[in-house]
Amino acid sequence: MMNIGLVGYGYWGPNIARNIIYNSGFKLACICDHDQNRLELAHKHYPFIPKLSNIDDLISNPEIDCIVIATNPTSHYTIALNALKNHKHVLVEKPLSTSLSEINSLEQIANEQDLTLMVDHTFLYNGVVQEMKSLIDNHEIGNIKYIDTTRINLGIFQNDVNVLWDLATHDLSIVNYLLQKMPKSIIATGKCHIKAGIQNIAYLNLMYDDDTIVHVHSSWMSPVKIRLMLIGGDKKMMVYNDIEPTEKLKVYDTGLSFDSNDKDQILVDYRVGDVNIPKYSTKEPLASMIQDFEKSIVQKTKPISGIESAKQIVKILSAAQTSLDMNGKEILI
Amino acid sequence: MMNIGLVGYGYWGPNIARNIIYNSGFKLACICDHDQNRLELAHKHYPFIPKLSNIDDLISNPEIDCIVIATNPTSHYTIALNALKNHKHVLVEKPLSTSLSEINSLEQIANEQDLTLMVDHTFLYNGVVQEMKSLIDNHEIGNIKYIDTTRINLGIFQNDVNVLWDLATHDLSIVNYLLQKMPKSIIATGKCHIKAGIQNIAYLNLMYDDDTIVHVHSSWMSPVKIRLMLIGGDKKMMVYNDIEPTEKLKVYDTGLSFDSNDKDQILVDYRVGDVNIPKYSTKEPLASMIQDFEKSIVQKTKPISGIESAKQIVKILSAAQTSLDMNGKEILI
Amino acid sequence: MMNIGLVGYGYWGPNIARNIIYNSGFKLACICDHDQNRLELAHKHYPFIPKLSNIDDLISNPEIDCIVIATNPTSHYTIALNALKNHKHVLVEKPLSTSLSEINSLEQIANEQDLTLMVDHTFLYNGVVQEMKSLIDNHEIGNIKYIDTTRINLGIFQNDVNVLWDLATHDLSIVNYLLQKMPKSIIATGKCHIKAGIQNIAYLNLMYDDDTIVHVHSSWMSPVKIRLMLIGGDKKMMVYNDIEPTEKLKVYDTGLSFDSNDKDQILVDYRVGDVNIPKYSTKEPLASMIQDFEKSIVQKTKPISGIESAKQIVKILSAAQTSLDMNGKEILI
Amino acid sequence: MMNIGLVGYGYWGPNIARNIIYNSGFKLACICDHDQNRLELAHKHYPFIPKLSNIDDLISNPEIDCIVIATNPTSHYTIALNALKNHKHVLVEKPLSTSLSEINSLEQIANEQDLTLMVDHTFLYNGVVQEMKSLIDNHEIGNIKYIDTTRINLGIFQNDVNVLWDLATHDLSIVNYLLQKMPKSIIATGKCHIKAGIQNIAYLNLMYDDDTIVHVHSSWMSPVKIRLMLIGGDKKMMVYNDIEPTEKLKVYDTGLSFDSNDKDQILVDYRVGDVNIPKYSTKEPLASMIQDFEKSIVQKTKPISGIESAKQIVKILSAAQTSLDMNGKEILI
Repeated sequence: MMNIGLVGYGYWGPNIARNIIYNSGFKLACICDHDQNRLELAHKHYPFIPKLSNIDDLISNPEIDCIVIATNPTSHYTIALNALKNHKHVLVEKPLSTSLSEINSLEQIANEQDLTLMVDHTFLYNGVVQEMKSLIDNHEIGNIKYIDTTRINLGIFQNDVNVLWDLATHDLSIVNYLLQKMPKSIIATGKCHIKAGIQNIAYLNLMYDDDTIVHVHSSWMSPVKIRLMLIGGDKKMMVYNDIEPTEKLKVYDTGLSFDSNDKDQILVDYRVGDVNIPKYSTKEPLASMIQDFEKSIVQKTKPISGIESAKQIVKILSAAQTSLDMNGKEILI
Repeated sequence: MMNIGLVGYGYWGPNIARNIIYNSGFKLACICDHDQNRLELAHKHYPFIPKLSNIDDLISNPEIDCIVIATNPTSHYTIALNALKNHKHVLVEKPLSTSLSEINSLEQIANEQDLTLMVDHTFLYNGVVQEMKSLIDNHEIGNIKYIDTTRINLGIFQNDVNVLWDLATHDLSIVNYLLQKMPKSIIATGKCHIKAGIQNIAYLNLMYDDDTIVHVHSSWMSPVKIRLMLIGGDKKMMVYNDIEPTEKLKVYDTGLSFDSNDKDQILVDYRVGDVNIPKYSTKEPLASMIQDFEKSIVQKTKPISGIESAKQIVKILSAAQTSLDMNGKEILI
Repeated sequence: MMNIGLVGYGYWGPNIARNIIYNSGFKLACICDHDQNRLELAHKHYPFIPKLSNIDDLISNPEIDCIVIATNPTSHYTIALNALKNHKHVLVEKPLSTSLSEINSLEQIANEQDLTLMVDHTFLYNGVVQEMKSLIDNHEIGNIKYIDTTRINLGIFQNDVNVLWDLATHDLSIVNYLLQKMPKSIIATGKCHIKAGIQNIAYLNLMYDDDTIVHVHSSWMSPVKIRLMLIGGDKKMMVYNDIEPTEKLKVYDTGLSFDSNDKDQILVDYRVGDVNIPKYSTKEPLASMIQDFEKSIVQKTKPISGIESAKQIVKILSAAQTSLDMNGKEILI
Repeated sequence: MMNIGLVGYGYWGPNIARNIIYNSGFKLACICDHDQNRLELAHKHYPFIPKLSNIDDLISNPEIDCIVIATNPTSHYTIALNALKNHKHVLVEKPLSTSLSEINSLEQIANEQDLTLMVDHTFLYNGVVQEMKSLIDNHEIGNIKYIDTTRINLGIFQNDVNVLWDLATHDLSIVNYLLQKMPKSIIATGKCHIKAGIQNIAYLNLMYDDDTIVHVHSSWMSPVKIRLMLIGGDKKMMVYNDIEPTEKLKVYDTGLSFDSNDKDQILVDYRVGDVNIPKYSTKEPLASMIQDFEKSIVQKTKPISGIESAKQIVKILSAAQTSLDMNGKEILI
């Protein structure tokens, strides 16, 4: 059983704590937060687990094998760097860093010391995403022509990252996982209605070497919460509606049927065949993610949500930021 | 009672015929279509109304006061031109033309002869759109920060116009009507998955002189039908879901409440107040449009869906086409 | 081509007229209504078709082969009787009559003269109902344990029939068609909130010889419109939601899985397998019904919505009325 | 701070434990369960809190002030009796008992010793229910004409109570709370498809002294989960859809508008006015319930979910059971 230290007990920290405790491979050895209120909450939840307000005491502790970082984004890099230098396996909340060179140096250190460095792209462990990946891998969907994804709500405006780093990062991790290819260029538009420099609404247009097109809509200013992903293959199409309580995934047996009698129109049937709502795992994704972290350390396997995924997302979002700053200019990736 | 001749009895023609018949100011004097099958259908519907296959016979008939053109888009200009030259009032299905100079010449001829030239942007007569306009005009919504609109389905692929001219034109007519201002530039992306040169999926990003942003998503390749418009004002936000059978419009009493205690986050409440589903007219929009056509002719008023609206949409869609052809380059309007 | 006379041009009459005209086996020879306003509307729709205000002129006309009766319910019997006596085939709006003996005499006359007598239970020709029947007949659903159906809205309060004859009659026609068996007894409860003697809300509990149970909820006083039928078989279950614009039928691969380890609970999985949304015909049911009427006359076949269906519904609703009048006493059928 | 002992750590126990811990008036002093697996789970959750497998050790402990009983229903009475006799305040999961005389003796003992005896009808503390009660009390809804409630899903078949005691009890607690009057009689129908004597589907028809009608539909055999309550007043109507993630309550400004011109029909408008989605508290009901328990003990107030509510529900469900056993005979309450 490995000793884990959790840094950061804010919004996401309690969920991580709970899932570490449920995992038999880890012992939650310490909870660390610089905010006294959060430490008191942690104490209320887990009075028996040691608390620390000074992160250095945690990182320098030789009995700690792994560090999970759930602090605010700007501090991720420094803490991860320190933890790796102190020979800890590291799991970081997304985003690991907004700088590719920082990620590269972290990766290098992790590799040199044979440590696991993993980023929490939780959605990759979601049962629906796993089911979609499996349908694609089994050639049931065909060649994917487009992915259109919307992740909007009235939400928490953050001061240090814009809506892309907060929301689009989820979509991009899923898109990259399903497509297994990187876009060649990106066009991003958006607006800062609340605070200068922090986009609260943004649209990403991803272009690829072939005729695939991916579009991402992110917003903190929608009165309704929408989590909708449309995936169009040339054999079937999928709709992933994460707001639905139970039937989140629908697979449409669509296809293009050309009506050659009509010279003016190409007729496409609205429903060629049945719609299927496949069964998918409803296991909590965070539990699977913690498991994958354990497996990666113990069995030296590559985690699904590894450093490669983090690098891809940073590449895309950095290009997106450049495009935003240049009023929607196409930026090569 | 004015004599109206209907040219084109395809998909939309029967709806126009029905609404002309219900309007007491018009007499449907003739139905014209070059396709014998469509004429036979018209005969089945209205055996008593004269049918014609030659459009010139209709247009040269001095007893005809007005012409309604519901043929396929590429023929609109020529027929409208001929009709105007023969002193007929003209109502044309959208789009009037994809060329601004053509529209300008039609407008000039109409003006010179004091004829009504009107384009059928039916949605402007929709009860929900009218209710939204009224809420905006009454300052209940505040300054509009964004409009995001989605109009997608599995549909009829047309050979002569792309998805923008087919679907986005509806959204743009509504957006222009609600905002009462033109965008300064546009970025459009999209793909032709079925037929070269005809985009079946497209995204429009409209930028304005102020911090308003408008986004339009159009597609003929979605397995689900979505008709959703989000309108964010700084006082309230509106959601217009045209798929809902009865409660199509919701008004959210949202607002931004800053939590000054938290230095890292700007907190926005998910629901500041109640949600309201206002009553709106459910009158068939086409009936109101025909009425507006009549009023415009008789009382010499400007129709809601007049030539100005058509010109604005052509300007935007022409710029969009240029942007599409240049891989998403920003085009000034 | 047979000559049809339509009696009654109120709410449903125009739909019948339209479908008769589209059917190549019939010629709509005459429209008859005692209300001058309705005749004027009919004239607006079909100026070429003869109109009559005196029904006797229609029924005594030897050139008329068939009569369709769409008047208000209390007049159905007398008109049908007259029409049959004048050797016309008869199609009547539901309900044919609220009296079983009246139906029996009509049936006898029809049989003696070899005439078709048919009642319009339109839902039997609905694509979803046809698909459900086919799934049941193919043993995909298993033994049906229950049917629960809700048909409620804010609606038109009728003066001569209660909500059961207006709404439950649809559900009962479907239930009888799917189950192919009659209930042995019924318990009905309800209330007359608007007009004494006319129930505006009612609940039917149908008991059978086996352990099947059927429940029908009818109301004219619901603020929301619900059309929902749940059908539970011991192999699969079906949900027919008629409000959904496209995906009206879902088939759930449910089953009972007993967890023998737990002595206190019998565990039933929420979702044993996939959910399927089968393709079904979207043809207008009224068109199929008119077709079945024609086929029944020409080929001497039994129509799906024949006199037998009408008799069953009258038996059930008469028992229901008795139960209502006796405060929910169980009434044998 | 009062010491609370929790008996039963099954499905609901962990939720109670969590809310006790968050309440500052109580200290969770002990968790008791006869099942070793559940105790181990409790230990995983709260390693610091003492565990007991013998309930007598808990009840005889003089340092314990209150007992919360979350065991299976058949054991509630005996444990509550014991706890009261040992001078503990008692909070019991519903149902307190299925026998009215048992409840009466518990009430008597509690009263004699001035102890709080409370039953967990959690829904009475639900924000939507509180909002509905407030709208009714403020005369916004008018006289309630009907309540129709559906609570169905594929669920856990229990061996010791039927679907009425499991599900309808929630609806009845809400109905009684909103109406503030008892029904005068009941008719219940249902079926035991899985296990003899245990109804898995049931319908309740509640009659009152006036023209109010209440209907409850409970089922463990529905493929879809429905939690829907319709409340029709003569001024407004409410729809409480508990499946909706955020907009659970809608208030319809309906009314009856008589069309005196039509002698055959009473016309009721579908939507007289706007629909409102009022804001309601989203606080966890269980937290409010624990608070009410504390307040009742400390301030000697009557809890919302007190013994009176429990007695009413037992009276109704006992009559329902008799009606079920007599095939739907009307039973006076």
